[in-house]
Amino acid sequence: MAQTMKAALIKTYSGVSGIEFGETLIPQIDSNEVLIKVHAASINPADLLFLSGNYGIKRALPSVGGMEGCGTVIATGNSLVARMLKGKRVAFVSEVYGSWSEYTKASAMTCMVLPDHVSDEQGAVFFVNPASAMAMVKIAKQHKSKAIVQTAGASALGRILVKLGRENGLAVISVVRKDEHAQLLREIGGQHIVNSSSPAFEDELRRKSHDLGATVCFDAIGGDLTGTVLSALPDGSTLFQYGLLGGSTTTINADDLVFRRKRITGFWASDWVKTQSIFELLSLQGSMKKSVGSQIQTEISQTFSLCQTVDAIQQYAANMTSGKVLLRPV
Amino acid sequence: MAQTMKAALIKTYSGVSGIEFGETLIPQIDSNEVLIKVHAASINPADLLFLSGNYGIKRALPSVGGMEGCGTVIATGNSLVARMLKGKRVAFVSEVYGSWSEYTKASAMTCMVLPDHVSDEQGAVFFVNPASAMAMVKIAKQHKSKAIVQTAGASALGRILVKLGRENGLAVISVVRKDEHAQLLREIGGQHIVNSSSPAFEDELRRKSHDLGATVCFDAIGGDLTGTVLSALPDGSTLFQYGLLGGSTTTINADDLVFRRKRITGFWASDWVKTQSIFELLSLQGSMKKSVGSQIQTEISQTFSLCQTVDAIQQYAANMTSGKVLLRPV
Repeated sequence: MAQTMKAALIKTYSGVSGIEFGETLIPQIDSNEVLIKVHAASINPADLLFLSGNYGIKRALPSVGGMEGCGTVIATGNSLVARMLKGKRVAFVSEVYGSWSEYTKASAMTCMVLPDHVSDEQGAVFFVNPASAMAMVKIAKQHKSKAIVQTAGASALGRILVKLGRENGLAVISVVRKDEHAQLLREIGGQHIVNSSSPAFEDELRRKSHDLGATVCFDAIGGDLTGTVLSALPDGSTLFQYGLLGGSTTTINADDLVFRRKRITGFWASDWVKTQSIFELLSLQGSMKKSVGSQIQTEISQTFSLCQTVDAIQQYAANMTSGKVLLRPV
Repeated sequence: MAQTMKAALIKTYSGVSGIEFGETLIPQIDSNEVLIKVHAASINPADLLFLSGNYGIKRALPSVGGMEGCGTVIATGNSLVARMLKGKRVAFVSEVYGSWSEYTKASAMTCMVLPDHVSDEQGAVFFVNPASAMAMVKIAKQHKSKAIVQTAGASALGRILVKLGRENGLAVISVVRKDEHAQLLREIGGQHIVNSSSPAFEDELRRKSHDLGATVCFDAIGGDLTGTVLSALPDGSTLFQYGLLGGSTTTINADDLVFRRKRITGFWASDWVKTQSIFELLSLQGSMKKSVGSQIQTEISQTFSLCQTVDAIQQYAANMTSGKVLLRPV
């Protein structure tokens, strides 16, 4: 086997301008890791943060870009869990290494064998969004909330949440900022949609969240929207911020905190996963295997070759709501 | 006994301009309430919020101003707890009725018999600040924090916290905005003082909070200071906002929430008290009786007559750090 491979390499943490298509060494694996021949890799909002150096972790540069993908395990470390994956087609997450390359490595614990009916494309978006959505449902239930408010409601994650909520008897109130996004959600069965650019937004959200009993919100945006949403929620609500699509600053109304028992905290899927027991993670993977590719189908808008990574990222960043953009090694 | 009394009355929720000195009915009491002849009443930041209509509760207007004071119980309801207070000198909190009047009423549960060595003046500031400071120490211990960061560090509450922290083996890092405030704290034994107007502020606070293990902060200010303080704290820290001295908006950095497991929530003493068991409250009152008037001595800067309430409030609002301002019925 060759020693080197093609990859989209991050040279500097400076956005897309820091990316260069080039050659690098095929990674070495440890006993609990697997070497994967990549079939398809995804681009997520987390990758955009990562490229600019604003994600929760940084890798030593140069490093392969991306965090999620689908591929076949062609070599494994010596651990039992790793060896069980040999030759299998898996969905994987790799925060310590990248996925935008011909080969990658991942911990055996963050790989999941894909059922045959799940395509490579759906496999490449198997982990990050569906797992986050499932975690959100679990957290909402722990908080005994009857409904979930979700900003960036028409995002890939938002659309999965609408479906998952329905299966789990949780109403999902989707906050969108354009009528066409509301339409997208209605087409997949979204029932509670509020447009943040409407003058009646705060009143409508207040009424819906009180009527439906939504005391948790998952917010991908930040900025002033967070404060408006938090103010509309019932007293004692918790807002989980999980994204920074609106920039790096979040503004809230102090009296919601001081007098209304509201709180704001973060949700970072990678971090949340570490707080779960192995049993809980296996049960989560079980639910995912059942749903993904059937009830949970993520829309893929376009596929690019690895040498077009910069174009692919720009296309994704400019049209996030139209679907996922994938990369394929050729 | 007369039917009416003199009082500082809130006519509209419009700040000091809504206050009028006048006559009103002496309040009727229920079985669990006591009628108190007021000796002295205090002005707290909560009163300023209350006057502008921005406090967590509102009373039907016109209403007597104030929430805290000291006086003698001259009549009681029929309940056992109420009757036990007959003739006693008590410190009291009354959120449902006011304290800026010749007579007031309070629930027997929110009165505490004062030891003889505690003066009327110290009795009038007995509850709100010392109880809040004790709650803060308790919360910090529950969070297993080794130290507390406190903004408005030189406030009456901040000064009590410095002393209480020392007694409880908790370092207190006081955030002040003027050198003279730092000096005030040093005089009472404050050891960890950081000036928020210094260019090195964030770095110093980061170093101190990491060195001393401060993972909780009690923030009275809000605004941009909250975000700066939260960013300086170790990962996983909790900021409790309990005041709005900096205005009604709080700004934080989204990545502290998403990637650093930090959270922001409110602390409202009145609300916190309701979450405590009777046993916990009695034990809190016991600690207060031991400390207040001896270790915990609140500085009183000036006393006004009830008919000068507007002057008194203006004096207090303009010089919060110089000590408490009291009102006395004449």
